[in-house]
Formats: sequence, structure tokens, C-alpha cells
Amino acid sequence: MRKIDVCLSPDLIHLYSLENTAVVVVDIFRATSCMVTAFANGAQEILPVEDVDFCQSKKAEGYLISAERNGITPAGFDFDNSPFSYQVEKVKGSKICVTTTNGTVAIRRAEKAPLLMVGAFLNLSKVVEALKNWEGDALVLCAGWKGKPNLEDTLFAGCVIDELNGHYQVADDAALMAWQNYNIASKDLQTAVKNSSHVNRLLKLGIEKDIAFCLEKDKYAVLPIWLSGKLKVES
Amino acid sequence: MRKIDVCLSPDLIHLYSLENTAVVVVDIFRATSCMVTAFANGAQEILPVEDVDFCQSKKAEGYLISAERNGITPAGFDFDNSPFSYQVEKVKGSKICVTTTNGTVAIRRAEKAPLLMVGAFLNLSKVVEALKNWEGDALVLCAGWKGKPNLEDTLFAGCVIDELNGHYQVADDAALMAWQNYNIASKDLQTAVKNSSHVNRLLKLGIEKDIAFCLEKDKYAVLPIWLSGKLKVES
Repeated sequence: MRKIDVCLSPDLIHLYSLENTAVVVVDIFRATSCMVTAFANGAQEILPVEDVDFCQSKKAEGYLISAERNGITPAGFDFDNSPFSYQVEKVKGSKICVTTTNGTVAIRRAEKAPLLMVGAFLNLSKVVEALKNWEGDALVLCAGWKGKPNLEDTLFAGCVIDELNGHYQVADDAALMAWQNYNIASKDLQTAVKNSSHVNRLLKLGIEKDIAFCLEKDKYAVLPIWLSGKLKVES
Repeated sequence: MRKIDVCLSPDLIHLYSLENTAVVVVDIFRATSCMVTAFANGAQEILPVEDVDFCQSKKAEGYLISAERNGITPAGFDFDNSPFSYQVEKVKGSKICVTTTNGTVAIRRAEKAPLLMVGAFLNLSKVVEALKNWEGDALVLCAGWKGKPNLEDTLFAGCVIDELNGHYQVADDAALMAWQNYNIASKDLQTAVKNSSHVNRLLKLGIEKDIAFCLEKDKYAVLPIWLSGKLKVES
């Protein structure tokens, strides 16, 4: 049977083979939740980059620009890192250049995978459907927080494994543990994450509604895919 | 309150501050379980090294030597990586040089900590007692398997956190998740680990009795401590 594994941090990605492997990058709070939201609101293309200055320079090329460092948006950018900021008219048809603390790093580190998707609870079923149709192995790459594993991305990984039970076999202990963590949390994700370090960071930023929004399952039926150095959705 | 964290892999240790932090290195199957067993059987000193040839060269200096790579012991060594091989008369008063796939690497990467201990289920209470007496923060460093997190070391970390509930506060999500994983597994550790990747590797080597032994709590009241480049126990 096909195998599914979980990489709990981008700093461990060198230990995982990407050959014949579909990778799902997840950064629930909030990069991949924002990307899914942007595509659901009509964005045409998202370019994830690692450097804030480079991101800013893309403004001159017609990109809308989005940046986040340590949960905060520097001045002069079109979007902050809230999924609500992408639910506006100007997103429709736009090209967006994005840089975030963790999510864009994770995407760039997995870009050699034959299939690279962006996942969030918001587009869970689309991710699961794509993995059911994939014929190789699968890896959920958690963006974590500055290299450290985090709860919400691990819970998403466990949720994907749970949804694929019978279709994929758990590859290794990290996947087994993520699945267990999800099983404990699944009935009430909001309560489950309330003790997590990142939620505490976000609560200090006053964005409780972002947390609730990012934990909603299947709000959007879009699947961002890495294609020629950019994220796109099938039209 | 003091904080306790968990580093799930030696490849993530660069993300953790060791300042004023007591580190417990754990490699349940089987390096730290063997070290605890050796000291309980009278070993005087253990020198963990990363290189097999260097380990072998210490034989000429009067050390008993122990090596393991991928679960197997190369020819010419006094001990394999089973805790039963240390329950023999020649261990008493001996100096032992050890190299293993994961455990010795983890110890070497944490050697700058102000207090570095070797932990296993076998000496759980000694570890917990030492951390209750420590006045700084604490970190459990899981040896894992070739850089990947594993279940049994994570469960030990969760167990230590559980025992220290009320004395230390969980620092971050990895610690929170390890604690949750332990709570699921605590009533029957042997059943809990039977689906883990490393147990499957060990079962192929025919060492079921090692697994049961390494999951026994508090069999020995010894605490190996890193002192001047070697492991020793208080006399």
C-alpha cells in the first residue's frame, strides 16, 4: 500500500525522500490558510519568496504584495497575514507575492517534489481527493514555528492521515504520533489548540477570529499546486 | 514556573537554548537503557563516542568497547546494544567506550548543557528527582532514529513531563504533543509501541525481550551524569 509520512519541521526535510512523493505543505496559522483563501477569492497566481525586500520589489512588476515576520506585517504591503484580508475585491485576478516566517520557507524546501500542494483545514477535502488520486507516496510537511514543530500543523497532518485511512499506510512514528494527536483533538479543534504556543502568540496579536476561521474544514474547494515556480489552481 | 521542553530529534537541537537548562538525553531502544543498566551493574565510567574505529581503538587503553550501527554490533566488540549484555560480572568497575547510531550523537550535541543526564524508563524516578531539584529549565532530547522523531523516546519525554506536572510548565507544542502521546500510551507501553517503526526493526532482529526490558520503569536507581567528557554516576 502507498505510504504517508509527516515531516514535523522544515529543518528535518533533508531526511525525507521526495522521489515519487506528493507533498502537502501546511502552515495553518496562517500562511497556507491565507493562500487557500486568496485563490478561493479569485487570485490568479501566488509567488512565495523567502526575502521581504525581494517581495517588496515585485510590487513594481504588478504583484500585490504580502509579508509577515513574527506575526506582524511590515509597512507598505497590500495584505497582512490574516485570511480576512484576502476576502476583498482586489484579489480577483491578481498575482500575489508572499513572504511569511515559516510557510514560504517550507514550500521552497519541498519544491523538487513531483507534486507539491498547499493544504489547510479550509481545503481539506481537495487535498484528500488529490492524494487518493496520486499513485505514489505522500508527505505532509509542517511549516512549524522557526523550525520547531507546532500543534496546529501536526493536527492537520493527523487529520489528512485519518481521512486517508485505508488508502495509505502510516510510514513512520512521526505520522503515527500526529494521527494520535489528531484523534485526541478532532472533536473540538479550537479547544485543542488553545494551549498551543502559536495560538498564545496570535491571541496576543488580538486575532481570535483568524484562529476560528483557519480551523474551519472545507470552506473552500480550491487546491493550490506548485507549477513552474509559482502556485496556481486548476482553472 | 520552570519550563520543560522536548526536542524530538538531535537535528533540531540548534533551535533550543541550553543555557541554565538541564538536558535529559533519551534513546530507549537501546543506548540509554544500556547505559543505565551498565551503571546499575557497577560500571565506573562510560565514554560515548561517534566513531566506530575510534571506539575500537580505546580497547588498547583498557576500555571495554561497545558498538552498534543499524541495530547490529560489528565483530570484535565486548558488548552489543542489548541491556542484557551488560548484566555480567565483567561490567563491575569497568570503563566502557560506546558508540551507537543515535544515542551517542544526541549526548555529544548536548554536552554544553550545565547539567546533562542519561534517562530511560529504567531510571525514571532518578531523572524526575534530579529535575525536581534543578532550579533552571529542562529539556528532554530524544535521540530518535537517524534524525527522525520516534515514538518510544517521545513517550519517555511525555512521561517525564507527566511526572513533573505541577513542578514544571510545558514550554512549547512539542512538549504538549509528547505529553498527549504518553497519556494515550501510559497504561500499556508495550502495546503502544508495537506499531512503531523502531520496534518493527527490532523485532526483525529477534529481540522482543529487550523491548519489554527497556519499557520497565524504575528498575534501577542510578543517574548517569556528564562530567568532564564522560558519563559517571554519583558514588
